[in-house]
Amino acid sequence: MDLQHAARMAKTAATRLSALDGATKNEALTQIVKALEADTAAITAANRQDLAQAEKDGLAAPLLKRLRFDEAKIQEACAGLRSLIQLPDPVGVTLSALELDRDLELYKVSRPIGVIGVIFESRPDALVQISSLCLKSGNALLLKGGSEAARTNRILADTITAAATRAHLPDGWLGLLETRDEVTEMLALDRFIDLIIPRGSNEFVRYIMDHTRIPVLGHADGICHVYVDREADLQMAVRVAVDSKCQYVAVCNAAETLLVHQDAARAFLPAVRDAFTQKGVALRGCAATRRIIDIPSATDEDWRTEYLDLMLSIKVVADMDAAVDHINTFGSGHTDVIVTADRSKAVRFMDRVDSADVFWNCSSRFSDGFRYGLGAEVGISTNKIHARGPVGMEGLLIYQWRMMGKGHVVADYSGEGAKAFTHKQLHKRFGQSHAEPTP
Amino acid sequence: MDLQHAARMAKTAATRLSALDGATKNEALTQIVKALEADTAAITAANRQDLAQAEKDGLAAPLLKRLRFDEAKIQEACAGLRSLIQLPDPVGVTLSALELDRDLELYKVSRPIGVIGVIFESRPDALVQISSLCLKSGNALLLKGGSEAARTNRILADTITAAATRAHLPDGWLGLLETRDEVTEMLALDRFIDLIIPRGSNEFVRYIMDHTRIPVLGHADGICHVYVDREADLQMAVRVAVDSKCQYVAVCNAAETLLVHQDAARAFLPAVRDAFTQKGVALRGCAATRRIIDIPSATDEDWRTEYLDLMLSIKVVADMDAAVDHINTFGSGHTDVIVTADRSKAVRFMDRVDSADVFWNCSSRFSDGFRYGLGAEVGISTNKIHARGPVGMEGLLIYQWRMMGKGHVVADYSGEGAKAFTHKQLHKRFGQSHAEPTP
Repeated sequence: MDLQHAARMAKTAATRLSALDGATKNEALTQIVKALEADTAAITAANRQDLAQAEKDGLAAPLLKRLRFDEAKIQEACAGLRSLIQLPDPVGVTLSALELDRDLELYKVSRPIGVIGVIFESRPDALVQISSLCLKSGNALLLKGGSEAARTNRILADTITAAATRAHLPDGWLGLLETRDEVTEMLALDRFIDLIIPRGSNEFVRYIMDHTRIPVLGHADGICHVYVDREADLQMAVRVAVDSKCQYVAVCNAAETLLVHQDAARAFLPAVRDAFTQKGVALRGCAATRRIIDIPSATDEDWRTEYLDLMLSIKVVADMDAAVDHINTFGSGHTDVIVTADRSKAVRFMDRVDSADVFWNCSSRFSDGFRYGLGAEVGISTNKIHARGPVGMEGLLIYQWRMMGKGHVVADYSGEGAKAFTHKQLHKRFGQSHAEPTP
Repeated sequence: MDLQHAARMAKTAATRLSALDGATKNEALTQIVKALEADTAAITAANRQDLAQAEKDGLAAPLLKRLRFDEAKIQEACAGLRSLIQLPDPVGVTLSALELDRDLELYKVSRPIGVIGVIFESRPDALVQISSLCLKSGNALLLKGGSEAARTNRILADTITAAATRAHLPDGWLGLLETRDEVTEMLALDRFIDLIIPRGSNEFVRYIMDHTRIPVLGHADGICHVYVDREADLQMAVRVAVDSKCQYVAVCNAAETLLVHQDAARAFLPAVRDAFTQKGVALRGCAATRRIIDIPSATDEDWRTEYLDLMLSIKVVADMDAAVDHINTFGSGHTDVIVTADRSKAVRFMDRVDSADVFWNCSSRFSDGFRYGLGAEVGISTNKIHARGPVGMEGLLIYQWRMMGKGHVVADYSGEGAKAFTHKQLHKRFGQSHAEPTP
């Protein structure tokens, strides 16, 4: 099936999907759980083939780990689907209701975005998660997975599609792309695709962002900072810095730079150096840092680098404002932390640091959809519009304005003797008549 | 002042502006009202110069009208500013509050977007409106007005800047660009500018959208439809169709195409033809339409055309689904209307038409920020993310996630003996301690 055709079908399916009631969508999700369980043997067999090929191709161990989709992973995916079924239908929720005049009512109602283009590397579990989130939120999707997971993705897409069809979902709501050429072509399909969500390496995400007019939800870099203030509890600061850097180094919310108030440096730096050395973290520092602890020197390039590894750059700053300036200059607007005992300074830090997530006295590693209680995560966004930080299902929704009148025309509200608008807030949902009680 | 410098200053100012309290921002707005009133003579004098030049240059009458900024317009702008002052501070509002664990709290707090790039043609009142909306919502801005309004825009920007400085607003929060070259340059400044709002002709907006990586909030075309269903009250349908087309033809929310259910066509078309003929509207129709009323034929090109004039295309459709398909194919996702006595069909229409605004039994011309009770309007958006339809101050806001802990680290919540998250909703605002009562 060619991509243009798949995109056109997804667009048509999106219209129908957006109008489905919650029960139908839940029935489809239930069918998908059943099918994944019934097809477990075939899915894991396909995944073992992908794994064998990937090992032969010399794929790195962490990538092999992400590629694995065994029975336990399928069970985990099914558990995720079951909690998704429990959630209320996110589509058609009345966000505001206003009377403009007698019998002229305006509603703002939540709606799906339309067609979501998802491009991800490895991780077959992402396919299950993102397609079920799109289904629940009434969005169609075009998926492109990594070639190393081709067999697993194909059988998963087939299983999900067949199950959804049994629940009468419209054909074409899930399209799977299978060649790399199709990604380039997909990025040009702004007529059909409303939002692109890329999940993968920085270079990969940046490439996507640079090559499409379609809005992209995601993040390229995650250059996160921990700032240790003069008023910090230094033991706490060591603990937060170590967790932020070391708890899992290969992820976007791990810290890359430690900023230290000059008045705290002498007491703090030796202690934090010892803690990091124990964890095997290689340190680099500015001149002021190196006057206190003996580590290699950091350059401006370090402040801009996301190591994603057991490495950390350290800079001594004059005060909190200098730390904020550094973060706003070199950071990526992802997650930044202040450690201080002074609550008003923490609030000032949050007011001034222009990042999606700003934390006081806790690890940057908390920046994550599961920890935020969002349920399944669509991705983490460093965008300045629509959705920011860890994004749950909300990121797949927009709204529509719906007005209900009885023949009202604007001519009556303009010029000589114009009628006035009442603009009175209504306490009811869209579709609820006056007689029905407020929920 | 060169643009790079202005953009850098705006970025720095944005950080400070985002941290200002509501009282300071209101004081700046108050100073601006006073200054506009005090400088009225100078402002209107500059505007008369622009008008004289524009007349000499042969600017069309409607553009001349939009360019005029006389004492009455200044008074109107000041009234708008006074109502803006009355609104609560939109920044720092707690959107959600969640306990993750004991003493570990997560807040979602409203925040400004950052630096807004505004590009508009004529209309000096847009300068006052958009700069005051940005100020109230804590955003810095770079403004480029039409060259025909150069003198008016310059004195307005100077007046506003001087007044805001008296209220201690940061330097550079409002930058005025004065040459056309700067627009092209501005579109490349994605490092500094977070959102572009273009206000002007379709071609102008489409040019902006096609030439920048910065997100654009706006709409190019406004191809709006009125669909007259089989179950329509035909008198009401004539009234709604005429208002949608004629109440003001040169605007994006005016109707361009009338769709008529085949079973209503014979009774409806002659009546609506008479009504439109009286209003001087030139009609074009499909073959089925022309079998009933004698008008020139419409082509596919007509369905894609925003006339913005006393012209209307008419198509007879088999049923409501065919009308929906036509709208989703040829429309621009702006505003579409159904006239029917059948409420369930109206809801089905709204569920399926993928437009920002969908109306039942009322004119498309209601699609407007003032009529929606949004206060001042940032613009009308046909985007599928962030903000849709008429956009008020909300469109200039995003949120930030703020976490407050007491040294919490992720290591305690993973692996063997992991602590569990409580994910308990908190009923308090960010910054409010446990002791304070819930508002």
